[in-house]
Amino acid sequence: MSGIPPGYVRPLDIQHGRVDMTHGAGARAMAQLISELFARHLGNNYLGQGNDGAVLPAPTLQGQPARLVMATDGHVVSPLFFLGGNIGSLSVHGTLNDLAVMGATPLYLAAGFILEEGLPLADLDRIVLSMADAARAAGVPVVTGDTKVVERGKGDGVFITTTGIGVLPQGLDLGGARARPGDVVLVSGTLGDHGVAIMSQRDNLSFSAPILSDSAALHGLVAHLLASGADVHCLRDPTRGGLAATLNEIANQSGVGMMLQERAIPVKPVVAAACEFLGLDPLNVANEGKLVVICAPADAQRALAALRAHPLGVDAAVIGEVRDDARCFVQLTTALGGRRMVDWLTGDALPRIC
Amino acid sequence: MSGIPPGYVRPLDIQHGRVDMTHGAGARAMAQLISELFARHLGNNYLGQGNDGAVLPAPTLQGQPARLVMATDGHVVSPLFFLGGNIGSLSVHGTLNDLAVMGATPLYLAAGFILEEGLPLADLDRIVLSMADAARAAGVPVVTGDTKVVERGKGDGVFITTTGIGVLPQGLDLGGARARPGDVVLVSGTLGDHGVAIMSQRDNLSFSAPILSDSAALHGLVAHLLASGADVHCLRDPTRGGLAATLNEIANQSGVGMMLQERAIPVKPVVAAACEFLGLDPLNVANEGKLVVICAPADAQRALAALRAHPLGVDAAVIGEVRDDARCFVQLTTALGGRRMVDWLTGDALPRIC
Repeated sequence: MSGIPPGYVRPLDIQHGRVDMTHGAGARAMAQLISELFARHLGNNYLGQGNDGAVLPAPTLQGQPARLVMATDGHVVSPLFFLGGNIGSLSVHGTLNDLAVMGATPLYLAAGFILEEGLPLADLDRIVLSMADAARAAGVPVVTGDTKVVERGKGDGVFITTTGIGVLPQGLDLGGARARPGDVVLVSGTLGDHGVAIMSQRDNLSFSAPILSDSAALHGLVAHLLASGADVHCLRDPTRGGLAATLNEIANQSGVGMMLQERAIPVKPVVAAACEFLGLDPLNVANEGKLVVICAPADAQRALAALRAHPLGVDAAVIGEVRDDARCFVQLTTALGGRRMVDWLTGDALPRIC
Repeated sequence: MSGIPPGYVRPLDIQHGRVDMTHGAGARAMAQLISELFARHLGNNYLGQGNDGAVLPAPTLQGQPARLVMATDGHVVSPLFFLGGNIGSLSVHGTLNDLAVMGATPLYLAAGFILEEGLPLADLDRIVLSMADAARAAGVPVVTGDTKVVERGKGDGVFITTTGIGVLPQGLDLGGARARPGDVVLVSGTLGDHGVAIMSQRDNLSFSAPILSDSAALHGLVAHLLASGADVHCLRDPTRGGLAATLNEIANQSGVGMMLQERAIPVKPVVAAACEFLGLDPLNVANEGKLVVICAPADAQRALAALRAHPLGVDAAVIGEVRDDARCFVQLTTALGGRRMVDWLTGDALPRIC
């Protein structure tokens, strides 16, 4: 991202203007959009270098060269604005959380925007401001970026692909393949909030209480959990596909089964009611600020206490356990004492949830 | 990107199948697309970790912790396939070149795909295969990725945002603000090939000879140039907006002017003819495998010789010099001895060129 070129006269009309094809043409108009909108909100010393990439200090941890974690995440959520956030804050949280569940301390973000011709500049401004706020709150700067524009009808407002890098402490090795029979399964809070917030916004539904997305950056919660000393084997953020997809993925990667207790799974009453109305199972619904934790059984209470002591984990719960099962089945004991499979969705009841 | 879940029956029909919304739903169908298409082509030990991000070794140079360079680039080129490449290879070259012009040795790539419902899987397969070939040829693995699907009419086949990280040697400090009066301006080869290849493909034009995109990874050429010992102040790849936009950006960042010699600027005769036909100036047309080099005047011949000794630089030329000019004008002495401004385009004659 580069400096302001001289020679143009009027500043961008952010209140009434719209994105047009010139904003993607690599010349004056793009430079203006970058300086008057992107850099104004996201500005920092790295972004201010004004080159095709950002030069970053050598990543170290306690003075030693540190392993990196790199994660990338495209965001195509529709609608762009929803209760509890918008695509801008979501695109920061989404990628930070991919780093966080690896146990990494996030350092830097890059952001690639694909804008549709005709997008109101005021919308883009709100979105980039939310990104900036989310990045600032997380302590992770957006150090480099890119903007492309596509013709009307070839995109959908704005898509944002964010990429993050973080550093990983020596010896910390979390992964989907590390769940072992006997391990306990925890979640850091109520499930389904994000997906139901999006679906109700999309269908223009209102419920007894407003349903807000849980979109949040989880690296602080993860740091708090790991500092407790609990022997954590695996962390994931149950986004697209919800808890069901996340646990099935882990079960398959680790070659184990799982048994959950329906009664123990925290779901807000208003979300449960909305899910019933919408024909959704909260276990299939996306979350954007929740953690799935799989840890050694001896440390279940320690992990639970650590989660609950953090503002993002007050509703944390132990929801089940890992079992020996070569079929890798994830099952659930229902509130009535029955048993059912917790399957992946085969169709897509919830397109473009993130 | 994760492993193959059990429980589905038929492998993807890559020859006749199409992307549908389930491929973005975070469940079975997405896992299948990832394992049978993405991982099949791009597979490596990092990608094979199967987590939300890739764990990478501590980046060092000669045993010391090294500064990083991070760059991101969205690719929305239309058409997806063109003479000399496709969006897959382009998305690798584009980001590698952003790292290369910073002087960085590229280490890793991440790739975020936004697919439009209905995209033929055979097209996606060709694209990902080209990415894999380009990444392999460059020696830089795609270590992590993400896939989203949008409804038909909300995208345009496929958009690919790639992000790269590389390491930067101590003391190497290239940047758009380092051009000084007296410096010489070189290009590594003929200009306009990529943009004209795309435009002729789009308009279904044929010329006396086929015009191929110059899409190529430039980090080898840059390494060769830097190894020559030439005192290089600034490197850029003149993509969107062409040489004109690149030089105007540098002139503004450095607070200098430039004077180019039209006769010295290499343009293939068939590209020059096509530009005349299409009403384009080759200086405004995108390149995807060319380097702009600004170096100390004493080292002009050394830099030129180094460029020409590399297969990607055989047509390199000294094309002008940097001048003291507070107005930051980039000017050109025409072949007939006149003088004109080399301005940025204000409109966009060449949308979605990369």
